[in-house]
Parts: sequence; structure tokens; C-alpha cells
Amino acid sequence: MLTAAYTGDRTITIAETEPQAPGPAQVRIRVAYVGLCGTDLHILHGSMDARVETPLVFGHEMSGTIDAIGEGVDGWAVGQPVTVMPLAWDGTCPACLAGNEHICQNLDFIGIDSPGALQAFWNVPADVLVALPDGVALDAAALVEPVAVAVHDVRRAEIHGGERAVVIGGGPIGVLIATVARAFGAQVAVIELDANRRAQIEGLGFETIDPREVDQVAWVEQWTGGAGADVVFEVSGAAAAVLGATALAKVRGTLVVVAIHPTPREIDLQRVFWRELRILGARVYQRTDFERAVELVADGTIPSDLLITKIVPLAETRAAFDDLEAGRAMKVLVDVQAGQPGTDGVADAAASVAVDAQGVGV
Amino acid sequence: MLTAAYTGDRTITIAETEPQAPGPAQVRIRVAYVGLCGTDLHILHGSMDARVETPLVFGHEMSGTIDAIGEGVDGWAVGQPVTVMPLAWDGTCPACLAGNEHICQNLDFIGIDSPGALQAFWNVPADVLVALPDGVALDAAALVEPVAVAVHDVRRAEIHGGERAVVIGGGPIGVLIATVARAFGAQVAVIELDANRRAQIEGLGFETIDPREVDQVAWVEQWTGGAGADVVFEVSGAAAAVLGATALAKVRGTLVVVAIHPTPREIDLQRVFWRELRILGARVYQRTDFERAVELVADGTIPSDLLITKIVPLAETRAAFDDLEAGRAMKVLVDVQAGQPGTDGVADAAASVAVDAQGVGV
Ligand SMILES: [Zn+2]
Ligand SMILES: [Zn+2]
Repeated sequence: MLTAAYTGDRTITIAETEPQAPGPAQVRIRVAYVGLCGTDLHILHGSMDARVETPLVFGHEMSGTIDAIGEGVDGWAVGQPVTVMPLAWDGTCPACLAGNEHICQNLDFIGIDSPGALQAFWNVPADVLVALPDGVALDAAALVEPVAVAVHDVRRAEIHGGERAVVIGGGPIGVLIATVARAFGAQVAVIELDANRRAQIEGLGFETIDPREVDQVAWVEQWTGGAGADVVFEVSGAAAAVLGATALAKVRGTLVVVAIHPTPREIDLQRVFWRELRILGARVYQRTDFERAVELVADGTIPSDLLITKIVPLAETRAAFDDLEAGRAMKVLVDVQAGQPGTDGVADAAASVAVDAQGVGV
Repeated sequence: MLTAAYTGDRTITIAETEPQAPGPAQVRIRVAYVGLCGTDLHILHGSMDARVETPLVFGHEMSGTIDAIGEGVDGWAVGQPVTVMPLAWDGTCPACLAGNEHICQNLDFIGIDSPGALQAFWNVPADVLVALPDGVALDAAALVEPVAVAVHDVRRAEIHGGERAVVIGGGPIGVLIATVARAFGAQVAVIELDANRRAQIEGLGFETIDPREVDQVAWVEQWTGGAGADVVFEVSGAAAAVLGATALAKVRGTLVVVAIHPTPREIDLQRVFWRELRILGARVYQRTDFERAVELVADGTIPSDLLITKIVPLAETRAAFDDLEAGRAMKVLVDVQAGQPGTDGVADAAASVAVDAQGVGV
């Protein structure tokens, strides 16, 4: 089978290896699709070289079917569609003992800290499996992991219904958060600089704000009847956006910091004090987030057709990252079976075409 | 009667006026003691000139007894000891309608936005009165307002019992927060640079950390069995303290920003993300905080003897601020009746002596 591994120096190496039988408590997944994300791009750029061991078969957004079942695994059947919640925790650290296993102090993120999904057959511990409904489109199902991130962010913000939420940054994660927040009952406005993105986001039924054209604080104040937003999601990663985000929130409102900020950022603590704001960090997901994400993908709430802008065979993984980096695609999937040696890949190869080069962007 | 008013240009003017009868829905308080705080110092320095109208009779930490009762006021008796929760809200803004009257978007802070307590007889709306138990020491009772701030901070942090809390900054507010957090069931360590303050804080039974002598992150990690603190209170106001505070908190821990930060501060959002931290703003108090503060003062939980380092007559208010500013006193009280014209003040004048010039500091 073919595998795609980061081998350092901005290089992805496609190698041929033999599938292994699943060990005890493992299952072997026949991987269908793997989504490429910003974290994978960071790995490729070498930004995480201190953390990853090369060669690293990476990829952690995926869908597939169970291919073989190891000793001692119950409750799963060969052929069953699945995805993976790619977290392995130690169960013994203070975070785990307090019930926060998803942010275990010694977390193994599968696909970063241990081998990931860019291989035709992938052995994983059975306890990371998440069931997919029969008949789900496996390409859409590869979005479950990033949707679970969005569900986690929205649940952290305690959106239950009736809230008004502002999403700063209309890239793929911003669009997913907006979509999930709406599914949870919020009205959502998205602040986005790019006109093409704004048009697409409006096409999904969201309000948009061009912060260079309107005073975003005044806009939000009017939109919320003078109160300010219940929740602000900072998804842009821009220092100026963080600094301005607190001015958008209502008294006792919440700012969820979703974007990664590698260096400290200035925050308007005077405003945090004055309005008794709450700033929340949100990282990965819990199983309930994953299960809700499966539902949202399966029932069509997530606009997967818009989000999946390109599907490529495994051998073209490196070129797909270039598209991602250049902002030419929102979500690129790797069709892992396409182009695999032997008969397995033939049926899927036809899927390896560009679906829509004009995505929401990264 | 004598009043003390800020009249601009770092000046306090002592003037003689006639007491007024309380209007409808008002009571007249015979003011006993008024505490001077950092906010009063800001007013005196002119930092709040854009907000205050001069002459401003200021002072908002106080105790007294009811002297006269206006029309339509029920439930209060002349001679009853009281303090005042110095907030007046409009009841109609989005914050009020959501139940957050204490941070009303049009809040009138009595003693800043309207006349305060540095006058022998003070008319206030009856609904700001908070009852004191009979026999309470009125000097200690002047601490109820800052204690209510600490109760509010501790309640914001959701301390119920069993938590480990770190207070950064061992000034008066830090000591009050530590004391209240302990009363709510937390174990508390205080980070403080000054050796004299540390000695006093240790005398109150708290752990202390000199961050120049020990690695505070390692200390807290060891103190908490590798977890990190449940709650960190940032009371120092220092930019470096804010930046370092996030490293002290456990997974899903809370950082309460208590100090005023007039300019934006750098926050380690990477850490906020990694540990899913929560940063909370906390401002003033709610009635329940005030009522709890009365209990904590009345039952001796608050070390008022240590905290009240000086008591001066009204005429010496200006000099008392110099002591406060120079760090020569922790909490200075003005004995408002001492030195008043007529017989009222005679009995109290003996109290106008320096109690303890060596306070915890400001
Ligand atoms: Zn753990
Ligand atoms: Zn209001």
C-alpha cells in the first residue's frame, strides 16, 4: 500500500509498505478520504519539527471503513463506516483525573505525535473509533473532525439558542463555527475582509461585515439592540482582531479564542473589566462534540459541497498543500484509495478530480 | 457640617454647609467612617477629570447610622447602623434587563458620578442601604465595600471549597481576596515582592512566594501536585504579571483580572488555548456580595485591625492621601464626625490617632 509521510525539509515522501494486521484492541481501517488542514501545513513547513518524529505518516481528518478487527475488540463490524477522534490520553494526569481527558497534560494527538491516516490501511486503537451512519458520503465524512472542533468551540461558548454571535474571520473554520452556531440556535454575523468570501458566506445565509467599510462596533451594537454580541469567536489569528474583539461583546459576553496565536497578544483588559467579559480557550473536542459533528455532517447541515473544493489522489498530496497554502482551495481531501496498487483503488480513482477550485479559502 | 470635596488640580477643599433633610425615598446617614481607596486617589490625581464634575464630595467606602428618614421609606429606623452599596442603575439598559444591574451600561457610581460620603450627613436613596448588625464596630464596617469587591472576585471565580488559588500582588485588595477565598474554602498562596508585606501575609496564615527567589511556575506546580492552580487572581496591575499569570493555572483553570489595566496587556493566548483557560473580568459587586461582606467583617474573618492603619479627622483628608500614595498606610479611614462643628464630633475626636503606620501597603 502507499503511504504519504512528512520526511522533513518541506518534503512529503510517498512510500510503499505492507499493511499490518491489527494488534490486540486495534482495528484496521481502510481509509477513504483524508482532509488536509492548517496543522498539517505547519508540520510540512517544519514549524512542529521539535514535536514530530520523521518520517511521520500524518493526516488526522479522515473517513473510512473497518477492514479487520483485532483481538479483544467488540462492537464493531467489518465494512462499517467510521471516523477517528485522534486523541489518546494517559488517563492519569491531573487534567484526566478532573475529567478533561481531551486536554490531557500528556496528550498523544494521533497524526502528529503518532502515525496518521495518509495510508491505505491504518491500524488504530478501537477506542478512538466513531461510528458513521450507513450510507453517509465518505468524502463529507472526512469533515467530521474539523466540524467537531467547531462544535467544541460553540459548546464552550454555551450557545443554546437565541444568542447573537460574531465570527471574526470567514475562512473554513470560521464558516464551520458560523454554521454550527446557527445549528445550535444563534444568529451569526461574520467579519471578513475578502469580498469573494463574503459573497459565499452570504450565500450560506449569514450576515457579513466588511470592517473597512463599516464601523464594526457600531454595526454590532445596532444589530444587537445596543447590547453587544453574546459571543465573539476570534478565528482570524490577527493581532488587531484580538485587540478589537472585546469591544464587540455585551456585558458578561464571551470571547472564544479559536485561532492559534504563537506570540502573546494585546487584550483590552479595561474592557474585560468594565463589561465583566469572559475569554475562553478552546482546544480540540470531546466525544460528544464528535458525535454531534457526525450528525451535522450526515444530515446535511454542514455545506460539504462548498467546503470540499478539491479531491486528489494520495500521490498528489504535496501539490495539494501548495493549493492550500496559496489559498486556492478551502478544504482539500486526499482520496487515499485512488491510485493504490492492486484493484482496491480502481473504483475510487474517478473521484480524483477537482471539484471546485473556488473555495471559501484558508 | 464639614464636607471634603475634590475641587480639581490635586486639591481637596474642606467646606462648611448645612445638612439637608432627606427627600422622598431617601434617608440621611450620619456618616461615621469613610475609607480612602485607589479610585479616590485617581480622582485626586485628575485621572478621572473627564468623568467627574467638581466640586465632588467623594468617598464610597463608609459606615454610619441612620439619622433621618424621608417620605415613603419603610423598613429602616433612626440610629440603625448601615453601609451603602454605592451603585445606581437605570434598570432599562440591556445589561440591566439581563439581570446584570451592577454593571449597568449607564451606571451611576455614587461617590464618583454623584456625591459621596465625605460629609457629616449624607442623603442617599434608601435602596442603596445595606444593614449592619447592631453593635458592629463602625470603623471595621467601613471595610465592607472593599470586602464586597473581594467577595465578588471570589464568587466570579466560582470558589466553593477545596480549590487552590494564587493571588498575584499582596496589597490591600490582594489580602482581602486571599482572606475571602480562604473563607470560601480555598487554600491560598500570595505572590508578593515586598518582604515586609510577605511577613504580614504569612502572619495571616497564607503561603507566600517571592518570585525573585523561587520559580513561581515550578512552585505552584509542586504545590498543586502537578496540576496548576484552580484560580489565579491578578491583582498587581503589572504587565509582566499578566503575561506570566496564565502559566500558573491548571487545565480549565481561571484567571480573574482584578487590577485595573489602563492600556492593553499582552496575554499568552497559546497557553489559554493549550489548557482551555478562562479569563474573567470582575467589576464591583452585587447585593449578595455586600451582604456576605457584612458577615465577614462582623464575624471577624476580615483582619480589620491589620488593614486599618490610620484614622484621621475629615480636615486631614488631603494629608491622608499623601500617606496612601507613599505606601505608608494600607487603609486610611476618615473619622467624619471628628472635628465637626457642634457637639456631635467631640466624642469621636479621640479616635483620630494613627493606629498603625506599618500597613500591608497599597
Ligand atoms: Zn492525562
Ligand atoms: Zn442599566
